[in-house]
Amino acid sequence: MAYFNRIFKTQPSAPHGYGESYEQWGFPPGTHVDVIRSFQMVDRDRSGFIDDAELQQALSSAYQRFSLRTIRLLIFLFKNPNDPLRIGPKEFAALWSCLGQWRGIFDRYDKDRSGKIDLFELRDALYGIGYAIPASILQLLISKYENGGGGRVELNFDSFVECGMILKGLTDKFKEKDPKHSGLATFSYDAFMSMVIPFLVSYD
Amino acid sequence: MAYFNRIFKTQPSAPHGYGESYEQWGFPPGTHVDVIRSFQMVDRDRSGFIDDAELQQALSSAYQRFSLRTIRLLIFLFKNPNDPLRIGPKEFAALWSCLGQWRGIFDRYDKDRSGKIDLFELRDALYGIGYAIPASILQLLISKYENGGGGRVELNFDSFVECGMILKGLTDKFKEKDPKHSGLATFSYDAFMSMVIPFLVSYD
Repeated sequence: MAYFNRIFKTQPSAPHGYGESYEQWGFPPGTHVDVIRSFQMVDRDRSGFIDDAELQQALSSAYQRFSLRTIRLLIFLFKNPNDPLRIGPKEFAALWSCLGQWRGIFDRYDKDRSGKIDLFELRDALYGIGYAIPASILQLLISKYENGGGGRVELNFDSFVECGMILKGLTDKFKEKDPKHSGLATFSYDAFMSMVIPFLVSYD
Repeated sequence: MAYFNRIFKTQPSAPHGYGESYEQWGFPPGTHVDVIRSFQMVDRDRSGFIDDAELQQALSSAYQRFSLRTIRLLIFLFKNPNDPLRIGPKEFAALWSCLGQWRGIFDRYDKDRSGKIDLFELRDALYGIGYAIPASILQLLISKYENGGGGRVELNFDSFVECGMILKGLTDKFKEKDPKHSGLATFSYDAFMSMVIPFLVSYD
């Protein structure tokens, strides 16, 4: 049975050096072995945390090499608020699962299979997951991806994840502060600044 | 007298090809000739507007070569809201003057003349112009400049301008929506998104 499992991966088998129990390493029960392996592959010092460069490498096995800007945004959105710029197994599993959903959305709305989606496909994709973002807001965000050539802006999966995370993330934060769906949200100064700054991605 | 002016720049002399009146090109009365020349030097097609790469070049004559990320943030903050990613003479003059003020602040608070300022100097610099930013907010923003080495973060003038513009800009937007200084600001969804997105700088 152990042999069968190793070959066919019907159950996760404990990666070398990590013992038998995934839960003890902080992964949620039921985490797919590929997720655990991707994490452990880059967590070489067995600290239980990975930084931005390591996350970039860990995700590249299943997705693609994301820009460090997108990687940093993902870390800011998924990390424990009290941690520095790093994520542990639980956050990594949540992030992996979230990216899988965004990949599915991207493929569904990339109707011409160009590997890129435009403003209208982005709007439809967000509408499909319950976010009706006004055209003016989409235009404002997408204008940041203009290359100065004046052509139509198209987003690859990396930029799509970045845009999607920004729009969904900010909208969710707004809704938290508008529990009665009045269309108006009220923030204290600290809450406002602490909420916006994680979306500002700086990297030199 | 014309010769004297050319040498000593006691009065602005009309740059070649632009005629006698600066105001007709949209510069505010009293704009220094260096500002006008810097703009005209890069506005080669005489369109009256300059884009990000041109702004980067125009500012480098007096300040430094800013990163395109900072340049784009500056354009977003200074441009006419209805324009695409470009600025005209009036906005350029305002931006130039603003950068001069930030340069003065930077030099005043860079006490050890290292060309870099740290978290505490940034806090003092912002306090000096009337912005008492909580340490937790500063720490959150400055953590974005960590290089992963775990060392103390120091900002050069480019990053200082970026941080300062973000903190001052967001605080000003908050205050606009808190006219009674209650400590609470209320936003509609569109106002909230339109306000935050310009601070998110994307550039590939």
